[in-house]
Amino acid sequence: MRSHLTLLFLLFIASCTPVVVWETAETEADVGKINKASEEFVAAAKANDAEGLVSLYAADAVLMPPNEPLSKGSEGAQTWMRSFFDQFTMEDFNISAQKVVVSGDWAFRRGTFAMTVSPAGGGEQMQDVGKFIDIWQRQSDGSWKIHCNIWNRDHPPPSQ
Amino acid sequence: MRSHLTLLFLLFIASCTPVVVWETAETEADVGKINKASEEFVAAAKANDAEGLVSLYAADAVLMPPNEPLSKGSEGAQTWMRSFFDQFTMEDFNISAQKVVVSGDWAFRRGTFAMTVSPAGGGEQMQDVGKFIDIWQRQSDGSWKIHCNIWNRDHPPPSQ
Repeated sequence: MRSHLTLLFLLFIASCTPVVVWETAETEADVGKINKASEEFVAAAKANDAEGLVSLYAADAVLMPPNEPLSKGSEGAQTWMRSFFDQFTMEDFNISAQKVVVSGDWAFRRGTFAMTVSPAGGGEQMQDVGKFIDIWQRQSDGSWKIHCNIWNRDHPPPSQ
Repeated sequence: MRSHLTLLFLLFIASCTPVVVWETAETEADVGKINKASEEFVAAAKANDAEGLVSLYAADAVLMPPNEPLSKGSEGAQTWMRSFFDQFTMEDFNISAQKVVVSGDWAFRRGTFAMTVSPAGGGEQMQDVGKFIDIWQRQSDGSWKIHCNIWNRDHPPPSQ
């Protein structure tokens, strides 16, 4: 009997004290934060700033580049970014998100990218266009960081 | 006594209008549905069944294959699948999801795939390993469908 009453009491409390989440306003604010982080991403890419890019990834992030294995964690992301900027100088970089969805502490974007790079050792500029999905996770401080991202080209690799 | 408690319980519930969602159990059931849909995806791929694959995509889905532009909607997905199976016979196909997250009406998976195909016109079998992110959306009937998916290879394309 006591346990029945305890259960009833707990159910009563649980059903009467839900947290009201103002989803629309919250979502709008979150999309704003993600857009701002994305602008920082683009700015860092244009500045050939590996550390700036890595700072936008979560500590346990997974980077999923085309035609090579994935890179894990901040360290993996840093190694990948540094290797990229050792090989190429970013001349131009743009992202266009066609869809942004925030759902609770998670968000994803689907979009396209365009970039122009110069080989670090000299040579002709190369242009690349492609598409991406990135997953973002809300951090304990309220910021959003990239949990994982994957991209591929809209055309065969330039060397083909 | 039990019926009194039930009545009391219902009265308490009725007096507190917000619905409490037991997230853990719901999430578990949703992950189960997504895993089942994923098994159907793998089975359809192994059976070279374009229609079976397309049935797992939402009507407004976006397919983001490597080295070519994206395909939009069921029609785009169908064209892509048929073209793929015109060129290749699937000999083996496997998916391994390293992460599955359900958040509200959305879910994503990050994972790896491995496939073996034979050129439809004859020739040596080709093996492909890579990684993917897929985004799933809960449909009005409670099922989960693929909203968009993107993948790339862990190595340069075979023809390079």
